[in-house]
Amino acid sequence: MIRLVEVGPRDGLQNEKKVLSVAAKVSFIDALSKTGLKEIEAGAFVSPKAIPQMAGSEEVFRQINRAKGVVYSALVPNETGFDRALACKADKIAVFTAASETFNKKNINASISESLERFRPVVRRAKASMLPVRGYVSTAFHCPYEGPIEPRKVLPVLLELLELGVDELSIGDTIGKAAPREVRRLLDTVLKKIPKALIFLHFHDTYGMAVANALTAYEDYGITGFDASAGGLGGCPYAPGASGNVATEDLLYALQASGATLPADPRAVAHAAQTLRRHIDRPLASRLSSFAS
Amino acid sequence: MIRLVEVGPRDGLQNEKKVLSVAAKVSFIDALSKTGLKEIEAGAFVSPKAIPQMAGSEEVFRQINRAKGVVYSALVPNETGFDRALACKADKIAVFTAASETFNKKNINASISESLERFRPVVRRAKASMLPVRGYVSTAFHCPYEGPIEPRKVLPVLLELLELGVDELSIGDTIGKAAPREVRRLLDTVLKKIPKALIFLHFHDTYGMAVANALTAYEDYGITGFDASAGGLGGCPYAPGASGNVATEDLLYALQASGATLPADPRAVAHAAQTLRRHIDRPLASRLSSFAS
Repeated sequence: MIRLVEVGPRDGLQNEKKVLSVAAKVSFIDALSKTGLKEIEAGAFVSPKAIPQMAGSEEVFRQINRAKGVVYSALVPNETGFDRALACKADKIAVFTAASETFNKKNINASISESLERFRPVVRRAKASMLPVRGYVSTAFHCPYEGPIEPRKVLPVLLELLELGVDELSIGDTIGKAAPREVRRLLDTVLKKIPKALIFLHFHDTYGMAVANALTAYEDYGITGFDASAGGLGGCPYAPGASGNVATEDLLYALQASGATLPADPRAVAHAAQTLRRHIDRPLASRLSSFAS
Repeated sequence: MIRLVEVGPRDGLQNEKKVLSVAAKVSFIDALSKTGLKEIEAGAFVSPKAIPQMAGSEEVFRQINRAKGVVYSALVPNETGFDRALACKADKIAVFTAASETFNKKNINASISESLERFRPVVRRAKASMLPVRGYVSTAFHCPYEGPIEPRKVLPVLLELLELGVDELSIGDTIGKAAPREVRRLLDTVLKKIPKALIFLHFHDTYGMAVANALTAYEDYGITGFDASAGGLGGCPYAPGASGNVATEDLLYALQASGATLPADPRAVAHAAQTLRRHIDRPLASRLSSFAS
């Protein structure tokens, strides 16, 4: 069974220019909750000044209709964010760092090890509250500043996150430049040390290779954990107009065509994404969305 | 070296609703000619009533600036079409049939063997005129009427085309439903009998799997022949709004990222496709087009 983490309401929307109303986000999440998807990243408890799109996350968490069996998670950068997540009864939290020092510095103004230290009390408190924790590692293949990132630089960051106590890892191709052979190189290194059940791959479709990468991971390595955004939400801040996260419906469709069992029907996800259509200034970026509209 | 046949001016435009002027097509082809691409399917000598978009093919062939080293080919359904292609000095012709009887019947009102008989004199005359011939086999994976097509049904059609004397084969996933494992199944069957140098794969990106399919063929089988449309032109007549041929620039980008040597820079192709932007009612469907605009 594919373990699909729907990141559209967080990673997807966060990269959309237009700030959506709480009501629009709630309708989107509620529609996703009915598709069969088992986990939805519903918001981020970050600084509203830094990321205006996530400012309403408290309200979003309070207003959504929580479906039985669905995990609603939130991104948390520090202890203040964790307090907010706890107050909103998030089911799970996620911390985030990068495999590239330069990217981490520019993105969250901390070195990789500083960011890990910052997460230590957060992870400890999450554990004490029985909340599972996900650890994101972005720029795990390419960095917009440093270029290609070697697998041997990625592995220690993943291992340190596991040491901190995170329950799963999301390995991100933040700028969408990875090709299948780079996915194989990284997995060849990572799977020597880390069980594949702990791994989620997080592909962006900036250059159109996300589905090829995911199928390589699924078919050649048996990876079943993937992140995706319904409707292919989100852009790339380094390339205006470029597409963002791989579309959940397209990824699910390709995995099903490759023999995988799915948590949700791709067409149902494409329909759920349609709730956003009038709130987003451009057509949705998924292939299946043209069948849903 | 990747052998890329640019089919945008024919297969791509043929599936676009809006009929373009001869001038728009000529600008498009002339822009493509400067990218390094070695073969451009510039038109079709079919009935203008059946396919209005191809009505101006004579004029297109007369008005384009032929670049040295570039082959300008044309689709030809019968001897009348061949006469027109010859009059316009097409460098190469293409005949077309399908692996699905039902599709062929609905598409060109002939059984597969009837269509092959119809091509016999065309291929003979092309050979006499020293023109190379390509043979298209559409619905080689899925048929909109018959569903999945077994590789053992595809192989005999390919072999009969070779027997007729065609120089190369283009195997098409006409409705874009194939997944990499189906590409492997078909190639496992086909490559037992046919050298891979004779094979081109023709993927549509209707469901977002075209790049994954092409990379599977390239990486796992060493296939280097592919068809694609600059700008991701063309829709799918069975799914209004859906995307068409895989975009040349996206396919080239992914092949390059996978280690292949290219005939043309993907960004140059994306720029060439921009010449069509004001003639097409929707944004171009390629990932790289967002970087070119």
